[in-house]
Amino acid sequence: MPKPSAQAFVPFVSVENMMRLVHQVGVEQILRDLANYIEEDFRRWELFDKTPRVASHSDVGVIELMPTSDGESYGFKYVNGHPKNTSEGLQTVTAFGLLADVYTGYPVLLSEMTLLTALRTAATSALVAKHLAPKGADTMAMIGNGAQSEFQTTAMKAIVGIKSVRLYDVDPEATKKCARNLEDSGLKVVICSSPEEAILGAQILTTCTADKQCATILTDNMVGAGVHINAIGGDCPGKTELARDILTRSTIFVEYPPQTRVEGEIQQLDDNHDVIEFWEVLTGAKQGRKDEREITLFDSVGFAIEDFSALRYVRDKVRGSDLCEPLDMLADPDDPRDLFGMLHRAKA
Amino acid sequence: MPKPSAQAFVPFVSVENMMRLVHQVGVEQILRDLANYIEEDFRRWELFDKTPRVASHSDVGVIELMPTSDGESYGFKYVNGHPKNTSEGLQTVTAFGLLADVYTGYPVLLSEMTLLTALRTAATSALVAKHLAPKGADTMAMIGNGAQSEFQTTAMKAIVGIKSVRLYDVDPEATKKCARNLEDSGLKVVICSSPEEAILGAQILTTCTADKQCATILTDNMVGAGVHINAIGGDCPGKTELARDILTRSTIFVEYPPQTRVEGEIQQLDDNHDVIEFWEVLTGAKQGRKDEREITLFDSVGFAIEDFSALRYVRDKVRGSDLCEPLDMLADPDDPRDLFGMLHRAKA
Repeated sequence: MPKPSAQAFVPFVSVENMMRLVHQVGVEQILRDLANYIEEDFRRWELFDKTPRVASHSDVGVIELMPTSDGESYGFKYVNGHPKNTSEGLQTVTAFGLLADVYTGYPVLLSEMTLLTALRTAATSALVAKHLAPKGADTMAMIGNGAQSEFQTTAMKAIVGIKSVRLYDVDPEATKKCARNLEDSGLKVVICSSPEEAILGAQILTTCTADKQCATILTDNMVGAGVHINAIGGDCPGKTELARDILTRSTIFVEYPPQTRVEGEIQQLDDNHDVIEFWEVLTGAKQGRKDEREITLFDSVGFAIEDFSALRYVRDKVRGSDLCEPLDMLADPDDPRDLFGMLHRAKA
Repeated sequence: MPKPSAQAFVPFVSVENMMRLVHQVGVEQILRDLANYIEEDFRRWELFDKTPRVASHSDVGVIELMPTSDGESYGFKYVNGHPKNTSEGLQTVTAFGLLADVYTGYPVLLSEMTLLTALRTAATSALVAKHLAPKGADTMAMIGNGAQSEFQTTAMKAIVGIKSVRLYDVDPEATKKCARNLEDSGLKVVICSSPEEAILGAQILTTCTADKQCATILTDNMVGAGVHINAIGGDCPGKTELARDILTRSTIFVEYPPQTRVEGEIQQLDDNHDVIEFWEVLTGAKQGRKDEREITLFDSVGFAIEDFSALRYVRDKVRGSDLCEPLDMLADPDDPRDLFGMLHRAKA
């Protein structure tokens, strides 16, 4: 068979190679690196092609495509969300993503993104908390101790500098698993038996549960003045984690309002309720935290630009290394009009 | 490193393996098979989740995602369209696609789709022509002799039974390439030096050019009574191939009106101009060709369900064979909540 041209091969980063990359760089450093790439892209937010994710819902979950482009590169992520998967031994969220060259339309990177999504979600949370959490915040309550919890905690240590984490989950086994994974992290890890216990003395409250129904993980009386709430879970129409009264007491920061109003905590509020787009805090167009008693809330749902930043980082890191392998994914005949001839000649 | 579970591996069909599949089955047979799968899905059109493709346009081309679902399987295709690519030695269209299980959200097939798109586009055209072309149609004019032309011609032979093809392209080299690729096809191949010459005696007129501007490949006076027009090219806002007067004289058949009104030949007409959805011809809900003098026009733009059918076919054919290879694309820890632990243990 004739050999395909170099253009035909798309660099592919497998799960194994993603894990190798994380360990080569170090998990805390890669979280800092990702936060830097995300910050860089958030600062040039306005030039991106933005669209709410394209979702296909079923009774048991959702499959989504999240595309965006900065005019030079195009990226998208495929991601599913199936809360019932955990009980069947499968991941709630799996993902992969692709970068392509806008000028040619040719893909330039295919990558696993289950791990990369966990990393970029945590890096985004910590980047936001670095700007909005009260000064000297050193303790985080981590409510929901599933697959994302250690990533969140590690990013808050690496980027915000927390020293202690207080864990709570409705399932004590999840908390044990999380504590075990964090035992060499250098953090003080406190296992708590209620959300009320978990938030004691915490300046950052992170909620990361995956209930499909409107749940109330935090009630109004639990949230004192001056905290920063990092609401990660929910993220589906009809899926929330916070009591509505918390929202009305908070200054709310979001990624992309047209998506967050459908998926985020603010689906509980009127469509014209005031929110601040976080990128505007980075550029200085809007103020972040105004005083010590303000409750800041990051209503995170995850946006395509964060995946774009993460893919851009991976592309830059794996280029020319053995962390990617060439995938024969594009038919690319010598004469571009001769696709049939390429096929025909391959018969021989 | 711990070995990933079987769930972590996504069967991948490379370009090389797609070519092997085509030759194992035979190119005419695979076109017939694909037409059967497409017909099966068109007959159950109403149960599909349908959305116009999600397009990201730039000055030089477009990158599109085309998702759909039948409730059991979810599929999408990534495809670019860059007419200027040919002059730079690259394909105008490259593509890959994915099937996933709606119940778990886990991908079950990743496949090259540059070749598969060429095959499914041709199979769809021929399926439509089988139902709409005048009885006994044995001659096709093929105007535009680029990468899609031999696929179109071969499908019309395999599925409609044409015996002769008349080729024309603005570039004589493209026509020579097409004629050379068809020399063992069993068809009578006639090289023509104008579109007017190409359509002489042809009952099926196929146009497949990739001009970005509104072009007029066929003018009104060229189209006689009773022909079937298969308009494949264009397919972009502002990109058409036929004079408007041809459209108003024709009965127009389309795939999915919300997409075709934006991308197809009918963007030249009012939004409420009457069109027939081709699936309704297959189910018997609407009549196809009514008489010998009617001009039938298939205003083809390519729809996600055709890609879904093609991926479904490939999945069925490669299952358990050496035509696919396992791709380590999904992180799938033993304990689904222990993604961080999987990463952590991989360090060792």
